[in-house]
Amino acid sequence: MSDTLTLLAADGAALRVPAAVDLVAIVVGALLGGLLAAREGFAVSGVLLLAVSGGLGGGLIRDVLLADGPPVALTNQAYLPTVAVTAGITFFFSGWLSRLTGLLTGLDALTLGFFTVIGAQKAQLAGLPSASVVFIGTLTAVGGAVIRDVLLAQRADIVQPGPYNAVAALLGATVLTVLAGPVGMEPLPVAVVVIVLVSGLRLLSVWRGWAAPVAIDL
Amino acid sequence: MSDTLTLLAADGAALRVPAAVDLVAIVVGALLGGLLAAREGFAVSGVLLLAVSGGLGGGLIRDVLLADGPPVALTNQAYLPTVAVTAGITFFFSGWLSRLTGLLTGLDALTLGFFTVIGAQKAQLAGLPSASVVFIGTLTAVGGAVIRDVLLAQRADIVQPGPYNAVAALLGATVLTVLAGPVGMEPLPVAVVVIVLVSGLRLLSVWRGWAAPVAIDL
Amino acid sequence: MSDTLTLLAADGAALRVPAAVDLVAIVVGALLGGLLAAREGFAVSGVLLLAVSGGLGGGLIRDVLLADGPPVALTNQAYLPTVAVTAGITFFFSGWLSRLTGLLTGLDALTLGFFTVIGAQKAQLAGLPSASVVFIGTLTAVGGAVIRDVLLAQRADIVQPGPYNAVAALLGATVLTVLAGPVGMEPLPVAVVVIVLVSGLRLLSVWRGWAAPVAIDL
Repeated sequence: MSDTLTLLAADGAALRVPAAVDLVAIVVGALLGGLLAAREGFAVSGVLLLAVSGGLGGGLIRDVLLADGPPVALTNQAYLPTVAVTAGITFFFSGWLSRLTGLLTGLDALTLGFFTVIGAQKAQLAGLPSASVVFIGTLTAVGGAVIRDVLLAQRADIVQPGPYNAVAALLGATVLTVLAGPVGMEPLPVAVVVIVLVSGLRLLSVWRGWAAPVAIDL
Repeated sequence: MSDTLTLLAADGAALRVPAAVDLVAIVVGALLGGLLAAREGFAVSGVLLLAVSGGLGGGLIRDVLLADGPPVALTNQAYLPTVAVTAGITFFFSGWLSRLTGLLTGLDALTLGFFTVIGAQKAQLAGLPSASVVFIGTLTAVGGAVIRDVLLAQRADIVQPGPYNAVAALLGATVLTVLAGPVGMEPLPVAVVVIVLVSGLRLLSVWRGWAAPVAIDL
Repeated sequence: MSDTLTLLAADGAALRVPAAVDLVAIVVGALLGGLLAAREGFAVSGVLLLAVSGGLGGGLIRDVLLADGPPVALTNQAYLPTVAVTAGITFFFSGWLSRLTGLLTGLDALTLGFFTVIGAQKAQLAGLPSASVVFIGTLTAVGGAVIRDVLLAQRADIVQPGPYNAVAALLGATVLTVLAGPVGMEPLPVAVVVIVLVSGLRLLSVWRGWAAPVAIDL
């Protein structure tokens, strides 16, 4: 984690979120996607597809909406091979990896935070208004899970009551626009605060059994 | 309605469909999406997501396909906040709103007509051939409903026999290309004719129980 | 088939895959999509939508990701009308067409090969790295089937064990990048080799009952 933050600091001014941080989140996303597919008994193509969705899905949706050339998932030479290798690992070691429940829950929460920050900061760099920054940040964080649910023909996890995922990302992205805008904080501390906030909310909601609120009929 | 048409007339020459008309249709689409989510007992994230799908989904698909920079849903400062406020209203007043069945059916039909015209005229401005104008017009009209069905993991409403939605939009968009092309009518009267036609077909099919025709085996 | 290859040869240097070849694959894709919808008793809008998905879905996904202006499915005047006519044929003659099982299986396999090559070569022309060429080639080949499954709310065919489709496309696209890159073969022979390979793998897996491998727990 400290290496990651150093990288963030070094390139922060120009890029805000360097490819290396994106890559860590992508590996975790791909690992969780591939693992799910492997445990469900999917074919090798399904393991690959769910690893791609989990690792790159949010970023693909983000980059298609930002409409600034082909998605970085395609132009960056490292992303797809990394996902493919990760999918291969889940293909052969799903049983062993599945036993690491606590670690996976933690990594999942961290990834939610990373993707929120990466998406929101990229939308800011594109000069979009604050509401769009929040929208893109949230969509980058949960997009992979939405694609996964759609491919499995199951009702999207994020629309249902349950542990915070979209709600945590939404709050985090909103805080990000406030800290980076009116408060005027630097990109790096903003990223750290938001990642801690999103990951913390996600973990707390899983551990404490918090559910996102449902509609009230006043 | 008359204010809307005045706005259409005022900006008609340059923009053909001004943002204010788009915004009215977006509010109605978001209202119907959010209402469905609230009645289904979804979490706050689900209400927001279905409001975004219903209000902005068709336009997002349209703008991604037209590939002319980020979708207007993201660049226009008013769209996402409007959808968020609308989602908030459905979140708290779903019971009261649901009682307005007749009004909602009427607004739904009107929105189908508006989105058809907005989508088709934008595709015309992009210089696409007539068949693509019809396709984009239809997709803008039904795109939100398709995204909603996909997220709920239910078979897309528009592929099934039942009251006209895609069929009405398809006919309307086809009439639009004929009136705006060979007939050479001005954008504003074309818009009025097509909105009346699409909304009328939709309402008649709901009231009379018309179903879109299914395949015949000759 | 020989006409098609002559066309490929004629324009090969500049375009690599001319519109006429794309059009043949689109007709077959639309035919299979529309046929499925007609047999499932869908409305006319569903037959059209599944014909569009089958014929143009993969190409739409490919062109959205390549982000080089509106998809060729929209800018080419012939594509959508061709799909509409094909959908009309399936709408009226689904019973008669469905009896041609052997022919349809063969055409389906050939289309998988064509779409793989068309997608991969277009990604190469866009200057993307090899892994992205493989990804785009595979996605172009199976994208239509994925959209179809999503609209029908059924678990995506390509994630499940069964006859090769994504796996055949993936192998074909990988061979394409090797033959066109390190081996340095011309575009036309590469296309022929890959189409034969993908179609052959697909047909063999259907006839021999081969299933794509599932995850192994080492």
